[in-house]
Amino acid sequence: MNLFASRWAPLPEGVRAVSGGGLAPGFRAGALAAGIKPSGKLDLGLLICDEADATSAARFTRSGVQAAPVLLTRERSELSKLRAVVVNSGNANAATGQEGFEVAAAMQDAPAAALGVGAHQVAVCSTGVIGVQMDSEPVVAGISECAQQLSASGEEDFQKAIMTTDAFEKRATIEVALSGGPVKISAQAKGAGMIQPSFATMLCFIQTDAKLEAQTAELLLSVTVKRSFDRISVDGQLSTNDTVVLIASGASGVEIDPESDDELRFGEALDGLLRALAISIVRDGEGAVRIGRVVVHGGHGPSVERVARSIANSPLVKTALHGGDPNWGRIAQAAGMAVPESAPLPVDISIEGMQVCVAGREIEYDGDALAVRASGDEIEYTVGLPGDGHEAECFFSDLSHQYITINADYTT
Amino acid sequence: MNLFASRWAPLPEGVRAVSGGGLAPGFRAGALAAGIKPSGKLDLGLLICDEADATSAARFTRSGVQAAPVLLTRERSELSKLRAVVVNSGNANAATGQEGFEVAAAMQDAPAAALGVGAHQVAVCSTGVIGVQMDSEPVVAGISECAQQLSASGEEDFQKAIMTTDAFEKRATIEVALSGGPVKISAQAKGAGMIQPSFATMLCFIQTDAKLEAQTAELLLSVTVKRSFDRISVDGQLSTNDTVVLIASGASGVEIDPESDDELRFGEALDGLLRALAISIVRDGEGAVRIGRVVVHGGHGPSVERVARSIANSPLVKTALHGGDPNWGRIAQAAGMAVPESAPLPVDISIEGMQVCVAGREIEYDGDALAVRASGDEIEYTVGLPGDGHEAECFFSDLSHQYITINADYTT
Repeated sequence: MNLFASRWAPLPEGVRAVSGGGLAPGFRAGALAAGIKPSGKLDLGLLICDEADATSAARFTRSGVQAAPVLLTRERSELSKLRAVVVNSGNANAATGQEGFEVAAAMQDAPAAALGVGAHQVAVCSTGVIGVQMDSEPVVAGISECAQQLSASGEEDFQKAIMTTDAFEKRATIEVALSGGPVKISAQAKGAGMIQPSFATMLCFIQTDAKLEAQTAELLLSVTVKRSFDRISVDGQLSTNDTVVLIASGASGVEIDPESDDELRFGEALDGLLRALAISIVRDGEGAVRIGRVVVHGGHGPSVERVARSIANSPLVKTALHGGDPNWGRIAQAAGMAVPESAPLPVDISIEGMQVCVAGREIEYDGDALAVRASGDEIEYTVGLPGDGHEAECFFSDLSHQYITINADYTT
Repeated sequence: MNLFASRWAPLPEGVRAVSGGGLAPGFRAGALAAGIKPSGKLDLGLLICDEADATSAARFTRSGVQAAPVLLTRERSELSKLRAVVVNSGNANAATGQEGFEVAAAMQDAPAAALGVGAHQVAVCSTGVIGVQMDSEPVVAGISECAQQLSASGEEDFQKAIMTTDAFEKRATIEVALSGGPVKISAQAKGAGMIQPSFATMLCFIQTDAKLEAQTAELLLSVTVKRSFDRISVDGQLSTNDTVVLIASGASGVEIDPESDDELRFGEALDGLLRALAISIVRDGEGAVRIGRVVVHGGHGPSVERVARSIANSPLVKTALHGGDPNWGRIAQAAGMAVPESAPLPVDISIEGMQVCVAGREIEYDGDALAVRASGDEIEYTVGLPGDGHEAECFFSDLSHQYITINADYTT
């Protein structure tokens, strides 16, 4: 799959996709099957930055129920100085109490010992079923074994080890031309279900060989996550385990100064990459056939935001999208639901640039032409609320039979 | 279907279901096919109270996008003195602007002329597709014709005329023993999709021959709607057209004084009836196979409420319910999502009385026994948050292949 095929995430000028991917310089990765997934597939991944003065930034789920590795990493890791990530799939290590916390701590200690970094420089992530204790022994043994086999070309295995219900890989490497020379950014993401537009309900690991101050990494990650993983919905469900980690090795020697043109260029490139990855998560939304983008504008920021999320999360809008059905009445309904007690709301609605509703009232339009437009791969909805000055967008997948099949029978 | 079969809505003592139903005395109803539904089925219903001094109360959707009949009834009708209801199915008359408002006004005028009541005593309701103009002529002609054929036994046709995707009728009549003698309450509801626990995303018409002051009707409807139609979710979608109308004919001559034992008894009976109807809407949720009830308790009212709704609306919880899968990790996930930034949240979870999670941590339980309990028709989930003093419940349907089939192809 071409990650940059979507019209909604074009790469900025001066940025090129690196064919075949590969980790940014200064990183090694690897993976193995530690027996957590009953299928025997890769389920344990390890990533290390070989530069001692690497900088980093991280983001986590806001859920009130957070998995043990999230609680541990937030509590014990130095988030601006991370150098390693250990991640398992097949078990979320969530709702596992003190016992689960100790498993996460053992997962943090294991690579530290094997790789010569401090435990506080290791981020721990898990993804999989909630509410099942993990057996720490095979995982710790697996980490030690994995640490011996890390390589600069280990990205593909690392990607595979973080997947659960994902149908395809979500990774890419780009090269950004800066004034001091080119730098690379590589990233691996996972996520197909339990995805809600309230930041990052997924895992994403980002590496760059640019030299960044930790504050710059923090600032850039903060802004770009808000415009990417914060804007997507598969099923409106905030996860217990979501984590995004950016590590900058500095191996290129190309420094990015705060508030420089290079910072802007690097930020735009990171933005393009994360948006493409975020859209690929939606594209791989459990059972997804079509994806949508809704753009809402109007004079009241919170309403604009609520209406965008309400439409992106509506099962009625999602099933209509699935059916290639231009049933825009459901767009109006989902919009109205998000701004109660405001009737009559003079809402404007367009689908793929064709206006169907003006000031809350249907207008004449060519239904056949609309039906053709609504049956494409990517459908764009534009919603206007009264006033202007604010805009919010969300990307979302449809709701299909396959989603039901995948989710009606996940633990059993 | 026995409306009172659910263990969650037993009829109070002193109340009996009237076999075969039938309108409460003082009312007549009728229906015909006015050509709004392409299927040629009944799509226009009319209900009249023959007592000149009837009292009433009504509730409407809170959506910002409200259908023309809702806007009209709220603006022009005297809600404490309603004597008639005209309702059509097959077209929601929503997002239809001034033209749609005029159709609704014509629908209000038509029975007034034919039945000798004031237009302000007529409530107008519509349900069906959003965003399509209605042709007023056949509807007005149909109302005039229908007004000539109203009868005390017209309840069943009236029920049929308000149905859309409903798989079965939702009507019942009960008799309540009061100090002054028995009174009857009859009610007809519709609703299977676009149902969200934020009051009344459906239509329900309630008749009684008790003699009530308008304030008493208002008070009792307000309280009982909050405990019934406000507590259900099929798909979390607030509709543009929801309306509940209670009319008291007083034909029994039995007066219900404010703050009397009779008021309490009548209120409990109305409560039992509306809860049974609300549960029957969930039971008939589009594609529903199983239904759930979640009860959340804790020390913080808004959190308790949000967690209950988050669980009831979660597509992951709903698909697990559909699969008869005791995947309680999704209950924990949906709870955590509703109370962000509160981690670690010491949540307790029980399914059908079997505890599976204590203070946020899984405990040992008999998985086979749990699987058997989770495969019943009605599954009850209990969630404990820290503290006590507050409780909230929601009833919800599962999410099935049939929901997708129904909704992926509704307008086309």
